[in-house]
Amino acid sequence: MSNSIGVGLIGFGTVGSGVVELLQDAPSSMRRRKHIDFSLQRIAVRDLKKSRGTSIDPALLTADAEEVVADPTVQLVVELTGADGAFDWVSEALRQGKDVVTANKAMLAERGEELFELALANGADLMFEASVAAGIPIIRSLRNGLVANRVESLYGILNGTTNYILSRMSRGEGDYADILKDAQDKGYAESDPTMDVSGMDAAQKLAILCRIAFHSTGTGSDVFCEGIERIEKSDIEYARELGYVIKLLAIAKQQNGRVEARVHSAMVPVDSLLANIHDEFNAIQVQGSAVGPQVFSGRGAGQMPTASAVVADMVELLERRVAGAGTAIGDMVLGEEAVAITSVEAVEMRYFLRALVSDQPGVLERIARILSEEKISIASVLQKERDLHGGSVPLVIVTHEASEAAMQRALAQISTLDTVQGAVKLIRMEDL
Amino acid sequence: MSNSIGVGLIGFGTVGSGVVELLQDAPSSMRRRKHIDFSLQRIAVRDLKKSRGTSIDPALLTADAEEVVADPTVQLVVELTGADGAFDWVSEALRQGKDVVTANKAMLAERGEELFELALANGADLMFEASVAAGIPIIRSLRNGLVANRVESLYGILNGTTNYILSRMSRGEGDYADILKDAQDKGYAESDPTMDVSGMDAAQKLAILCRIAFHSTGTGSDVFCEGIERIEKSDIEYARELGYVIKLLAIAKQQNGRVEARVHSAMVPVDSLLANIHDEFNAIQVQGSAVGPQVFSGRGAGQMPTASAVVADMVELLERRVAGAGTAIGDMVLGEEAVAITSVEAVEMRYFLRALVSDQPGVLERIARILSEEKISIASVLQKERDLHGGSVPLVIVTHEASEAAMQRALAQISTLDTVQGAVKLIRMEDL
Repeated sequence: MSNSIGVGLIGFGTVGSGVVELLQDAPSSMRRRKHIDFSLQRIAVRDLKKSRGTSIDPALLTADAEEVVADPTVQLVVELTGADGAFDWVSEALRQGKDVVTANKAMLAERGEELFELALANGADLMFEASVAAGIPIIRSLRNGLVANRVESLYGILNGTTNYILSRMSRGEGDYADILKDAQDKGYAESDPTMDVSGMDAAQKLAILCRIAFHSTGTGSDVFCEGIERIEKSDIEYARELGYVIKLLAIAKQQNGRVEARVHSAMVPVDSLLANIHDEFNAIQVQGSAVGPQVFSGRGAGQMPTASAVVADMVELLERRVAGAGTAIGDMVLGEEAVAITSVEAVEMRYFLRALVSDQPGVLERIARILSEEKISIASVLQKERDLHGGSVPLVIVTHEASEAAMQRALAQISTLDTVQGAVKLIRMEDL
Repeated sequence: MSNSIGVGLIGFGTVGSGVVELLQDAPSSMRRRKHIDFSLQRIAVRDLKKSRGTSIDPALLTADAEEVVADPTVQLVVELTGADGAFDWVSEALRQGKDVVTANKAMLAERGEELFELALANGADLMFEASVAAGIPIIRSLRNGLVANRVESLYGILNGTTNYILSRMSRGEGDYADILKDAQDKGYAESDPTMDVSGMDAAQKLAILCRIAFHSTGTGSDVFCEGIERIEKSDIEYARELGYVIKLLAIAKQQNGRVEARVHSAMVPVDSLLANIHDEFNAIQVQGSAVGPQVFSGRGAGQMPTASAVVADMVELLERRVAGAGTAIGDMVLGEEAVAITSVEAVEMRYFLRALVSDQPGVLERIARILSEEKISIASVLQKERDLHGGSVPLVIVTHEASEAAMQRALAQISTLDTVQGAVKLIRMEDL
């Protein structure tokens, strides 16, 4: 059997050209895999007229992705668009028994099960390391390196844009709006940053990791999700005083057959590894039943980190094909073992609450009574006269573990008090 | 082809029984790999009379490791001894075309090339994730997840015993001798701790990683190696004042076709991830040409973390066998591409020097002149009257980058000065 495999590329933007660069200028680690020989057969691009430099034969280009999938010389389809048609192209390729590599997290988070089943049924393989945390080999580590572990929990910093904004806010370089604007000007954040700052991007990635770690079927929208839009400078300052740093965390745990999954801002201890993941870097902390806690960190986005993951998947698929090995997708098809992601209501956490209250007697007592009625126990209270707004003072309460449902009920009641001005700020706390 | 594979275990101590436990009580991540069925056929033990609980059929036990290798029902040999015979057993198994999993770092560091060539020649496979950093999937990440990268550098905390001692010293819990003794009493350190505290254990692990990352042939003894025995409380205090933490680092870099590899105490910036790897934890920071810096951290020793790595290798080998795939050892055989590890002499680093000097005029000038003659430029000088010993004061000098050879020449000269008392302490500095 020939060692050469025909590759069809759908999408030739930043990541696509990074992949071609790595294939053309392969490091010796790849060259030493003697049986690696990729032959680029067809590339679907959005704009045929755009200049592509000299390294690509223009005859390979097409504007029609379906042509790439249908090309009989293409055995491996690499899908790197965020386009609406991606699901159709990938599923058609799998139906034809062609292997697929994709970086498309939204497609996997929302319709992964269909694709994995299709791959299995057609003896094809589907790999997607680049869909979560780019070049960090977290997906193959969960599937292979940690296969002998029951994963107990995952804590991830899975979105570089929000980590960049929070890191700069923590260094006192501005408030949320300023830094977001600066990040957009520099091209670090999208002109519509909603997917990132709302936590939805991290939620989709978490849904993919949960499928591997906990065999859950949930999509991104099953993950409880709160963004960083409401984090203020003063929250970061209070966190620092308490010995914490604020991060947008993607958290999933498996306990008593229940899988919880949530994305929200959280205070994490300043000396934890995750607190020390700065700027655009990502990290995943995995708690495995045999290995204990492990952390994987690195760049979670960008041309070459993403291309690195895509090419690693391509190499593995090529080696499987050359060796005559069958599909390795079996562990991704959940079947009857699928577990649903449960509601966040029953989850217990510690909370940081901040309210602007009237500077008069009895205010703390009334709030404390509401918390007590919901069986929420107070760990500490901070009340300082440091920011007077016409007779108002900020009140900060840190609680012991309480259920999200109880806290939400208490919050609703506290907000109705006439001595409480504006919304009560709530930030969850995680002791990693 | 049957999905069952006959396993022979050589060594049934702590790790061996952890492996059996993981096989008998496999997590669902393993059960979902439908084709996984290990059949434990034979176990070589040191003492046949020792009680083994009820879960192992006594008929499987033998005191003769060669019997395990020769058993025709054994297709996969798992070698978990540190015994002298290990090389013979493993090479005989490979000669018979049997796959081998081993955790034996000394054997791999010293005689890896012979074993990899033997495996390749006989269509067998040899896996060894457990040999470096236990359950951290660093070996498969370097071989597979990062295959599209040229590795530029590796910085590792690869020895848990020394990291435990240095962590406790950094927390002010005692000096080197006290903490080592306490660690020995608690079973965290060997009764003969030489391999650990001298850095030799880390050097062997680094040699294995260098082979994968840089295609170097070096063994543990080709790695420049200095231990932690001479680190004192005051070094740790000076480091803190300068914004550093002292760690035993295993460092390897590839530059201009040269591979440098060294293990020594080093000051690392207090806010780097490696500075925040505490106690018995290990970590490896990899700089990849495409992914940039990545960090992998976790427990680097212990029964279940090590067993986790062994079982992950077993699962991969079984799946390859079941799929009819050939050996995957090709990338480990260096052949003509092998690169030697170069001497540390030419390596350039920054240095921390500490000497006890006479409290009299001209001392600093004479030392500065020696450094200057060796083209070593001084970054900062600290001289405090904080510890007078009969007219002596400690002098601390931090240098800019200088070659190890120049520094050693300067050190030899400084030591001959009659105004310098005792040995000059040198600690290398690494800005990760």
